[in-house]
Amino acid sequence: MTTKHLNRIYPLSREKVTIHDAFWAPRQEINRTKTIPYQYRQCKRTGRIDAFHLDWTPGKKKPHIFWDSDAAKWIEAASYSLTHHPDSELEVLVDDVIDLIVSAQQDDGYLNIYYTAVEPEKRWTDLEGGHELYCAGHMIEGAVAYYEVTGKRKLLDAVCRYADYIASVFGTEEGKMKGYPGHEEIELALIKLYRVTQNEKYLELSRYFVDERGTSPHYFDMERQARNHEGHLKPVVGHLEGEDVNKYHQSHLPVREQEHAEGHSVRAMYLYSAMADLAYEIGDENLFNTCKRLWSHLVHKRMYITGGIGSSEKNEGFTSDYDLPNETSYAETCAAIGLVFWNHRMVQYECDSKYTDLLERALYNAVLAGVSLDGEKFFYANPLESKGDKHRSEWFDVACCPPNLSRLLASLEEYIYSESDHDLIVHLYVQSRLQTELAGKKVTIEQTSNYPWEPQVDFAIQLQEKARFGLKLRIPNWTSRYRLEVNGEETDEGVTLEHGYVRIERDWQDGDTVSLTMDMPVFRNYAHPAVKDAVGKVALQRGPLIYCLEQADHEASVFAVELPESSDFQVVFEEDVLNGIAAIEAKAYARTSASEELYQTDKSFKETAIKAIPYFAWDNREDGAMVVWMKEY
Amino acid sequence: MTTKHLNRIYPLSREKVTIHDAFWAPRQEINRTKTIPYQYRQCKRTGRIDAFHLDWTPGKKKPHIFWDSDAAKWIEAASYSLTHHPDSELEVLVDDVIDLIVSAQQDDGYLNIYYTAVEPEKRWTDLEGGHELYCAGHMIEGAVAYYEVTGKRKLLDAVCRYADYIASVFGTEEGKMKGYPGHEEIELALIKLYRVTQNEKYLELSRYFVDERGTSPHYFDMERQARNHEGHLKPVVGHLEGEDVNKYHQSHLPVREQEHAEGHSVRAMYLYSAMADLAYEIGDENLFNTCKRLWSHLVHKRMYITGGIGSSEKNEGFTSDYDLPNETSYAETCAAIGLVFWNHRMVQYECDSKYTDLLERALYNAVLAGVSLDGEKFFYANPLESKGDKHRSEWFDVACCPPNLSRLLASLEEYIYSESDHDLIVHLYVQSRLQTELAGKKVTIEQTSNYPWEPQVDFAIQLQEKARFGLKLRIPNWTSRYRLEVNGEETDEGVTLEHGYVRIERDWQDGDTVSLTMDMPVFRNYAHPAVKDAVGKVALQRGPLIYCLEQADHEASVFAVELPESSDFQVVFEEDVLNGIAAIEAKAYARTSASEELYQTDKSFKETAIKAIPYFAWDNREDGAMVVWMKEY
Repeated sequence: MTTKHLNRIYPLSREKVTIHDAFWAPRQEINRTKTIPYQYRQCKRTGRIDAFHLDWTPGKKKPHIFWDSDAAKWIEAASYSLTHHPDSELEVLVDDVIDLIVSAQQDDGYLNIYYTAVEPEKRWTDLEGGHELYCAGHMIEGAVAYYEVTGKRKLLDAVCRYADYIASVFGTEEGKMKGYPGHEEIELALIKLYRVTQNEKYLELSRYFVDERGTSPHYFDMERQARNHEGHLKPVVGHLEGEDVNKYHQSHLPVREQEHAEGHSVRAMYLYSAMADLAYEIGDENLFNTCKRLWSHLVHKRMYITGGIGSSEKNEGFTSDYDLPNETSYAETCAAIGLVFWNHRMVQYECDSKYTDLLERALYNAVLAGVSLDGEKFFYANPLESKGDKHRSEWFDVACCPPNLSRLLASLEEYIYSESDHDLIVHLYVQSRLQTELAGKKVTIEQTSNYPWEPQVDFAIQLQEKARFGLKLRIPNWTSRYRLEVNGEETDEGVTLEHGYVRIERDWQDGDTVSLTMDMPVFRNYAHPAVKDAVGKVALQRGPLIYCLEQADHEASVFAVELPESSDFQVVFEEDVLNGIAAIEAKAYARTSASEELYQTDKSFKETAIKAIPYFAWDNREDGAMVVWMKEY
Repeated sequence: MTTKHLNRIYPLSREKVTIHDAFWAPRQEINRTKTIPYQYRQCKRTGRIDAFHLDWTPGKKKPHIFWDSDAAKWIEAASYSLTHHPDSELEVLVDDVIDLIVSAQQDDGYLNIYYTAVEPEKRWTDLEGGHELYCAGHMIEGAVAYYEVTGKRKLLDAVCRYADYIASVFGTEEGKMKGYPGHEEIELALIKLYRVTQNEKYLELSRYFVDERGTSPHYFDMERQARNHEGHLKPVVGHLEGEDVNKYHQSHLPVREQEHAEGHSVRAMYLYSAMADLAYEIGDENLFNTCKRLWSHLVHKRMYITGGIGSSEKNEGFTSDYDLPNETSYAETCAAIGLVFWNHRMVQYECDSKYTDLLERALYNAVLAGVSLDGEKFFYANPLESKGDKHRSEWFDVACCPPNLSRLLASLEEYIYSESDHDLIVHLYVQSRLQTELAGKKVTIEQTSNYPWEPQVDFAIQLQEKARFGLKLRIPNWTSRYRLEVNGEETDEGVTLEHGYVRIERDWQDGDTVSLTMDMPVFRNYAHPAVKDAVGKVALQRGPLIYCLEQADHEASVFAVELPESSDFQVVFEEDVLNGIAAIEAKAYARTSASEELYQTDKSFKETAIKAIPYFAWDNREDGAMVVWMKEY
């Protein structure tokens, strides 16, 4: 098609990186030892595993149309966790599940619980709502992950057969269906399958799905008519009208003509991720520019300060520009995870810190809030304000978020570093060790830090022989000043600033050290005046962390607290609170009342103090109100 | 039962009072010449009138279970408007409708469209949701009103037969059903029927319905079981659980044990109105004290500053204390009208200005906002904040609010004055003339004022001979200083202040004048700190009017406006705006943005000005945002 992108970088693969910090490593450990087994038990308990026996009979509870994906995401998460933690018991369990899944594959390669066991005659009749291609995508991702970690091909071969069959059904060629998925996912999965198999058929199928989307005549319009407007989406979004119907699944326009982030936000993120992947693989600048346009719209008009996206429960997605209500924010955990996926892909194509800043914003706030500190309760929607009535759940009927969180946490190693032919790029500051080859030389780098609590990051470089390469360190957008030392001394030699990354090119020697110290003040965020629910308020931030006030730390109602413009902040490390956090304390005022009258002509205050905690840690103590945006005095 | 209340006062009947002011008289004229005919046409167009032919057949659209009440309320409104505006054409039309209604009455006295034409076998099986007794109540009110104005008995006789039949069905006696209405209304209607017929059976039936409510064993619990939990309420409030189910219709406790305003707010108001009526008629202090307890809870915990009540659409009613969201406020127009009804009854029992203050607050704000200036569009829910997407409708499927507004506006004469054996009481300042007898002497009083725009009220007394009586004038809670003159001079002679009313007792002579001038400053209301959606904000008020900002008057977003604590206010009379209003102008600031970033570390302002308009007048110009509670700087 076109030439490959020349400046591309690529993520260091998971096995080259070991995380051993105080922040993420324990979370990965909880994810591995608690959440992943817990999710298996939930899948088992709810019938999501056994449904692959295809033994549903009329009268029994129907399997959901997306159960395949829950099992697949569990396989994917388990696979990632095996990378650094071989666990033969877990591996046997995965193998058993894979045996069962593969046993459900039909002779022609088709593999789907619902449309095999419940409505076999309806295969491919409800691409818009039936989630068949979505489930196929997740199964491919699970298969690729398990193959990468274990080398075992059984599921990979099965999904290749499935993908081959799908390629025989869909396409622009005569006799094929010109359909595409209502819930995007398979597009990005096929790129993964292409990367691991090098079979260009899968790359081409992904490109077909992306480029066919939204073209005329409109596939879903025709499909809906053929189904007499019945189908799986009707009970979910039957209330949508006009162009909102196709915006819901980003098919309102051909993809390359889209300018605004629209519709169901998880679908949007998975589509945009696939677009960035495709642009990367085939050097498609037009497609990448479409991504940039959508990115700019999303970031400037439709994103919560936490990196949460999708304002409304009604479409689980985007509404209108600047419509970002706090209490009713949807901000689905999966959508924030999708934002991480997408920005991780964007930065590989164009190494600009704006993508990593956004990835980090979503990761440390909107994503991380999705799971409780004990790893066993989950938010589906992530409000920025609560009266005290919103709490994480142990599981969901539509259980996309828990395994999505698990697979991201279990693969976090991929997100920290990238490399290119001449550079090692540090995106995230997470204490870890990497071992790779750069410029043909083996290199080990130890990253030491207590991020996100402390702003100092040190790198110790181990080399068997000298090597010349660029070390690129991201300068986050939350800092305005940093100090860089090489071997204990500030230096300008070979140092350049490139799109938010400081790059040090030199002949590195064994024992070289690099230190980056960033100013990490508490600062106040103000919203654009068009954001009606945040304008006039303030949100505190330190480093990548957005803070909130929880009622548990306050005597006065958190809604009645007003932070003086002049208040200084104290950062207090509390080892025993919420598994250890840096809290922010400040003097403040709280509205009081001289009487029990609801409406009064005098206003009165009392002095009080606030103690803000990181947003991700909220709702891990007793019930109570919470605000991210607080009033300023 | 008990002795009648000794200090009771009673409203001057409509025919004794003529309104000829610049504020209400034109609204009554629009109501009479436009709204009432318009509502007839709507009732006719939608089949609400013709349904009394009882010719529904399977396959045709079913009449709603509460259609009877829409016709009845139209009759009631039309009757009131005939008081001062004889209109033979309208009277003929009402007679025709009454002929049709009475033709639908069954031999046993039963009179209901739905349960005669559609499900005759289900009569009285769904008291909880079927609205039969509610419809009966409205039919009684319509009949009483038409009889009072015209002396015609046809509908009155019909509803007496119906009430006699109802009395034969319901009661504690052996063989009777121990039920009561799911939607209260008939209780207060029966008091009206008692007053006009002096038949104590109706008083007793009302008392039975009130006192049976919520007793054990619980009638609705049993009824629901007998219906296998199906019924008309299920689709409406099937989501309610536990004690919320019976709170919805105020049957969670015996009425006299209730302490909190709960459930569907219109139902609550109609019940409380009936309770106040009963207390008044039978001198039942226990029942009146129950009313006072509920009043205090409502006013201190669950009322919008506009007098709107009922925070949530989910139950069309009350939620929890201090839960008063602005944008999603329900504040149904009918509920505010019910609040007027109730407080009008409370003040007759206990002449305390707190009831009239509340009546006035609701009337000038929450009620009046319910109808457009042209009298042809209506709000069902009355938000205190809008992004610009909320507008009045021409009609509703559930069309309770428009005719409710009409009957209140058409009977406003009743609300201005009360009398007792020795006093004439002025509750509301509305330019008008009254003619009555006091202490056995004929008296005419001309009230002159430009209320609510100007704070001066003058009374000119015409007497054929000297008379000694008390003239009581309400001192509204929005003023802190007033000046009282009798015959042009300040005086203390015979002047006392009684529960918010200044009382002047003297030997009045023909030609005496009384002038009341009140300070009417613009002032700032602050909400109790527990009201999370209003704390830290300010709502402007002048006289009884709550103000709001509409986008039409502002360049900056009304959400981004901040009113300095120090700003002075200018009151500007604008004859050409919104049919003539007093606007409030002040200097203010508006948040601006130095960039297109959604979240910024600097905050910037520009100077701007606000122009606040009375809340009742909002949404009468182009689409746009609106706020009652604005930020303060």
